[in-house]
Parts: sequence; structure tokens; C-alpha cells
Amino acid sequence: MIGRRLRKHVRPPRRTGSVSGNERINTLNDGVFAIIITLLAFELRVPQVPEHDLGQAIWTMIPTILSYTITFVVLGIYWVGQHNMFLHIKRHDRTFMWLNILFLLIVAAMPFPAGLLIRYGQQQLAVVIYAATLAAAGLALNLIWWYASHDRRLVEKDIDPELVRFVHRRVLMAPVLYLLAIAASFISLTLAKVFFVVVAVLYILPNPLDHYHHSQVTRQEMLSE
Amino acid sequence: MIGRRLRKHVRPPRRTGSVSGNERINTLNDGVFAIIITLLAFELRVPQVPEHDLGQAIWTMIPTILSYTITFVVLGIYWVGQHNMFLHIKRHDRTFMWLNILFLLIVAAMPFPAGLLIRYGQQQLAVVIYAATLAAAGLALNLIWWYASHDRRLVEKDIDPELVRFVHRRVLMAPVLYLLAIAASFISLTLAKVFFVVVAVLYILPNPLDHYHHSQVTRQEMLSE
Amino acid sequence: MIGRRLRKHVRPPRRTGSVSGNERINTLNDGVFAIIITLLAFELRVPQVPEHDLGQAIWTMIPTILSYTITFVVLGIYWVGQHNMFLHIKRHDRTFMWLNILFLLIVAAMPFPAGLLIRYGQQQLAVVIYAATLAAAGLALNLIWWYASHDRRLVEKDIDPELVRFVHRRVLMAPVLYLLAIAASFISLTLAKVFFVVVAVLYILPNPLDHYHHSQVTRQEMLSE
Amino acid sequence: MIGRRLRKHVRPPRRTGSVSGNERINTLNDGVFAIIITLLAFELRVPQVPEHDLGQAIWTMIPTILSYTITFVVLGIYWVGQHNMFLHIKRHDRTFMWLNILFLLIVAAMPFPAGLLIRYGQQQLAVVIYAATLAAAGLALNLIWWYASHDRRLVEKDIDPELVRFVHRRVLMAPVLYLLAIAASFISLTLAKVFFVVVAVLYILPNPLDHYHHSQVTRQEMLSE
Repeated sequence: MIGRRLRKHVRPPRRTGSVSGNERINTLNDGVFAIIITLLAFELRVPQVPEHDLGQAIWTMIPTILSYTITFVVLGIYWVGQHNMFLHIKRHDRTFMWLNILFLLIVAAMPFPAGLLIRYGQQQLAVVIYAATLAAAGLALNLIWWYASHDRRLVEKDIDPELVRFVHRRVLMAPVLYLLAIAASFISLTLAKVFFVVVAVLYILPNPLDHYHHSQVTRQEMLSE
Repeated sequence: MIGRRLRKHVRPPRRTGSVSGNERINTLNDGVFAIIITLLAFELRVPQVPEHDLGQAIWTMIPTILSYTITFVVLGIYWVGQHNMFLHIKRHDRTFMWLNILFLLIVAAMPFPAGLLIRYGQQQLAVVIYAATLAAAGLALNLIWWYASHDRRLVEKDIDPELVRFVHRRVLMAPVLYLLAIAASFISLTLAKVFFVVVAVLYILPNPLDHYHHSQVTRQEMLSE
Repeated sequence: MIGRRLRKHVRPPRRTGSVSGNERINTLNDGVFAIIITLLAFELRVPQVPEHDLGQAIWTMIPTILSYTITFVVLGIYWVGQHNMFLHIKRHDRTFMWLNILFLLIVAAMPFPAGLLIRYGQQQLAVVIYAATLAAAGLALNLIWWYASHDRRLVEKDIDPELVRFVHRRVLMAPVLYLLAIAASFISLTLAKVFFVVVAVLYILPNPLDHYHHSQVTRQEMLSE
Repeated sequence: MIGRRLRKHVRPPRRTGSVSGNERINTLNDGVFAIIITLLAFELRVPQVPEHDLGQAIWTMIPTILSYTITFVVLGIYWVGQHNMFLHIKRHDRTFMWLNILFLLIVAAMPFPAGLLIRYGQQQLAVVIYAATLAAAGLALNLIWWYASHDRRLVEKDIDPELVRFVHRRVLMAPVLYLLAIAASFISLTLAKVFFVVVAVLYILPNPLDHYHHSQVTRQEMLSE
């Protein structure tokens, strides 16, 4: 193969081949997120009751609507998270695609633990399954970043090492907090749920990574002027 | 970080970092709309009746088919609305993504109030929930435009101020009319529904914004000739 | 507005403004088609019978599998049809987006008449609804082409007039045949179904439009060499 | 038509016309895969049992979760497979689109044989249907490659012949192994299932094709430096 001959002359081979252009992987991920949040909403069924009981029927749907909103927010966190991470990943290879499929496997299953938490919120098992699933999603995302950034495998060769470390810390924050939530669940389920809220707030608030994105854009604009 | 050093020299920092390239946000939004309208259609179930009762069974499906069409049109209005708005938004940041997720949260839930309106059209509660949901979607869209256009945060720096104001007025039109519909529902449900039809007609008809789009394209063509 | 001033000097205004870049409309359409064909497949449910009855249970699923395949082919025809047409459409405006939404409204509903035809194939009503829906989809597609190509509104100004006429004839072919099928259904349901097969075969076979696409590409390659 | 005149002068005509730009076909395929894996996950329903029976209820869901994971992996194999193949396909025509629709027809139906295998794993019929469906998907993919690469119809004219042969061999590997699994099922169902695991492992592991992708990128980088 031409490939084999070329490789000898040019540079030390990377461990796996990779190609640029991640549009299709992004389309797959965006598609999965779009479908989950839409299917969630579709669970809000029009009640079939006599006309004068409508108010009561809507009232009993409040937990379902709450559940919908919470899962929406959690999925939003992971969509924004992988979106921001993938801004820095410029190439992909087979292993990366499979790590991404692993991440989607966990994300696509998220409505299940979320529904479990709403329905059985007073049972430790539900709290633990919820926290474990979200921790697994965060770990999968961290694994993707480790794979992509190690040896600058799939990122720019001159990527800021500070940025690589920062993304690692930021993506690990959720799994660590969720594991703490699991530990806390042995003491108090309410304490565990406080952790869930803390994670959401931490990820929705703007943070230093956003500033980095800003400055990168600024730099590019400067270069192209 | 390189970013921090650069930022000092170049220009007064914006409040949050932002990056260009909204393709993935568009894919997410288009995906959500595509799925909702398809799932709606999927509710049209083949009736399971004896062969000679088919005509009757189809006849009883007319309200469902009507409901499908109306929700389709309403979703169409919001898809076209955000599509036209996003033509002018060139960048995104974390807050923008979350405002967009809020918009999707409301849009994805729309089949519910639409179904409610068809099933319980004679109940004020159904009319109010329908109008409130659509007003909320319009307000979320307006919030997105306010955030994106304020200080020219995510739009072109030299965007026509007239255009910014025009989009604001146009996007606010629906929530205002829906709030009027809620007020009207205390007098007459039929009057409230007239408002719903008025909104649809106003948004489907071509309007000055279309002319603006036209002229922008003309300008670009002139420059590139 | 800058737009209004510019327009006076440059060229006679088109009736509505239009912008180039149809990527998001394509994403919406591809999304709708992707979801329909997947939801169709999802109707193939694993039977819940005692183990030794599996063969029999699979056997009774043959009509469902057949229905799935036929609807898949019909949807394929319309996806390929709009795909090829949209290759020539370079811009869009509000009216175009609403005509496209009308087309999607009909396409998204197609599993319903297809299911009707399988379940009630011996009833004229089912045959007529099926033919009428597919004729409507074809007419909507033709309306889109008429709108886009009239006055070269949304296509290249120097588009081959022969091509414009050819696409018209080709897209009208299906509705004409489906209307003939409706007429035929008053004589014989079998004759009507023969028309359905004829339409499928005519659209799957390669045709002169394909050659035109080929030659366009050849021309571009020549110019860029 | 301009096309017909041009064609005579330039080069021997290919058998069918083709156009470059496969973005929409990719969007369709990614959409189908995204929807299947999400719908699969949605089958994981929150059990409705008394609170103290939750542990037991989760326990009985293990086979469903396992089924979900296996189908996810199988779909992942075919997504990665068509993704890598389509990297080399630069153009499309009507026949290619229909072969791709045939491939999607089989892929979209995959949750059915996968569910069958889990529910009726001790019945040869289920094992055979599962293997036959996956063999058919592989054969469809191979047909696509044969059509695209024969006479360099839809690939680069100077594509490495070694690569063309390698993709053929690699894509045929799965159908051959699945047909062997069908043969094995007459001796032992366990042996047949060993074949299924072997296929998964063979396709997830990195392979020479990845190295080829790597070297191609390296070559492009060299040229552009």
C-alpha cells in the first residue's frame, strides 16, 4: 500500500490512523440528543378524563412535567459538555468512534434513571442508579478527552497544555461529585440530591473555559485581519 | 493561559466567550423539529375495525387529523421564526446554548397543549395552557434575540440597528397576542381562538423582514461581482 | 433600512426576499425521512408467544414486513425526488419554507395510508386514500418546483429551460398516475394497484435527469481543471 | 440539453450520471442510526411496582439491558463500517441512493432480530433470522462498495486498487461469518453465538484500513505544508 511506504519516511507513526472531519460524528450525537429530548416531551400525554376533571388531571401531571424538565437539564449539561469538548477535537479514528458510541449508549439510556429517580425518589437504589449512570457518562466523556488529547492524538499539535488539563479537571468534576452523592446516599438521600443540584448549577454557570474559547476566536480574528 | 494574555492587548473583553460556527446548534434544533412533526403524524393510527366500518372509522379520525395539521402549522411558525433569526446570529456561547435549550424544552412540549386544546376545546383551562405555552416559546425566542443582539454580542458588529429592533417587535408580537388571547378567554373562548388564527396568518404571510433578507443577498451579490 | 435604499438602485425587486444556503431545510427534510423509516421499522415487534409457536408467529408477521418494505420504497421515491430537485434550488424564502413544510406534512403522514392499504386492501376507500395522499405529495413537490423555478426565483439565473420543463414533467408524472389509479379503482382495485407498481418502477429506474446531473458535474470539472 | 453536447467532447460517458456532495445521504444515514439507538434505549421502561419491590424489578430488567447493549454494539459496527466506507465515496447517483436505502431498510429493522435473539435465544429460528439479517446488511454494504468502486464510478479515479480490494474483503468478512454461524446453528446454537462474538471483536479492533486512513491524512498534510 502507498500508505505503508509513505509512513516510513514522514514521521513516527501514531498508534492508530485518524482522519479529519468530524461532521458526521457530530450529526450522530446531535441527532441522539435531539431525539431523546423530544421523546421525553412526548411522554406528556393528554389525559383522557371527563371535561370537569381536567384541572385535577393536569395537577397530577406536575411530577411528570418536573421529571421532564430535570432530565432535559441533565441532557443539556452533557450536550453542552460534549459540544465544547468536540470544538477542540479535529480528527477521529476507530477507537474514538467507539468511545463516542459508548458515551451515546449511556446518554441514550438516561431517561431511565431519571424516571426512576422521580418515581422512586425515596429509595436509595434509585438515587444510586441515577448517580452511577451520570457518573458513567462523565467518565466516558473524560475517557474520550484523555484518548483525544494524549500525545495530541486527535487535537491540534500546539494545543495549550493548560487547556488540556483544564478540560480534564472540568469533565472529571461531575463523576467525582456523583460518586460523593452515592456515598452521601448512605447517610441521607436529601444530601445526595443536594449534590445533584450543585452539579447542575456548576455546569450551567459560565466558567474559565468559555473565556478561553472567547480568546481563541479573538486570536483567529486578529490573524485573519 | 495564552487566552488571558492575548485578551489584555486586543480589545475590551465581552462578558462571556463565544465561538463562531452554529452548525451543531442548528442541527440540534432541526432535529428536534423534525422528530416532533414526525411523531405527531405517527399518532394517526390505522383503525382496527371490521372492513365495512372503515368509512365510519376514518370519519371519526377527522378531529385527530385536524389537530395534527394545526400543531404542524404552529411548529412550522416557530421553526421558520428561529430559522430566520439564526440567519443573523453568527456566534454562540454557553448562555446562548442554554437559552436555546430552554426554547427547545418548550417547543418539544407543544404537542401536549395542542392535544389538550383539541380534546378539551370547551374548557378555559385548555385554552389558557395552550396560549401560555406558545407565549412562553415566543418569549424564549425573544430572550435569545435580546441576548444575541445586545451589545452586538453574537451578531455582526455592523448589523443594521433597524433590523435588531424589527426582529424584537416581530418576535414579541406572538406572546403579546397570546396574552391577549388569555385575557379574552375570560370573556369568550371563541374570541380567544380567533386570536390563535390571527397569529398564524400574521406569521405565514411574507413581511418586511423577508425584504431585508432579500436586500442583504443582493448586496452580497453586488460585492462579489 | 439599508436594504430599502439598496434595492432601488440595483435591480427590479423579486416579489419576496430570499437567502442562499439551504442546509438547514435539507437537514429538516432528511431528519423527517430518517425518523419515519426508523419508526416504521420499530413497528416490527418481537412476538410474545410460547417458544414452540415462534415459527407460526413470524409467519403471521409477513404482511407487516411487506407493508414496511412497500412504505419504505414509497418514502425512498419521495426522498430521492426532493433530493434531486433540491440540487437545483440554491436559495430559499418564507413561501418556499412553507411549501416545504406542506410537503413534509403529507410525507410524515404517509405511514397512515400505507398501513390502511395493507389492512383494508379490498376496500376502495383505502385504495383511494392511499392514491390521494401520494398524489398530494407529488403535487406539493411540483408546487415547490413551480415556485422555485418560475422567474428563476430560487434557481440559477442561467438554468437550462429544458431542465426546468423536464423536472416539471417528471414530478407531475406520479400525481397523474395516482389520479388515474383513483379512476381505475372504480373499475377494479387490482388495476389501481398495478398503477402503484408502475409508479415505483418508473421512479427507481435511471432516467435522463440523471444524465443531466452527470453532465453538469463534467462541466464543472472541466472548468476547474 | 447543454449536457448532451458537452458529454460528446469530453470523456467517455459513465453509465449513470452522478453528482458530488454526499452530505445529505450522510445526514439521512446518521439520522437513522441516531434514532434507532435512541428508540432502543427508550424501551427501558421505569417499572411500576410497590417501592419495596424495586430491587427485584430492576433485577428482572437485566436481560433487556443486555439486549440493548448488544444491539447498540451491532449497530455501532455497521455505523462505523459505512462511515469508513463513505469516506472514500465522493459522488452519488440514483442507483447508489437506492442501494443505500436498501441498506437502511435492513439496518432500521435490526432491533427486531436482536430482540428475537434475546427472547427466543434457545430456538434455532431466532438465531438464523438474526444471522441472516446481519449477513444481509453486510451484503448490502458490499454491494454499495462494489457499485461505487467498479470502474471507479463514485470514487477517486486514482484510488489505490489495494484499498478497493481490502474494503471488499473486510466488508465481506461479516456476511461470510454470519453464513457460517447459520450452518453452525444446525450443530450447536452456542457455536453459532460464538461466531457472533467473533464478528464483533474483529470489527471493533483497529485494523490495517485505519492505518491507510492515517497515511492518507499524512500525505495530505505533507502536500499542504
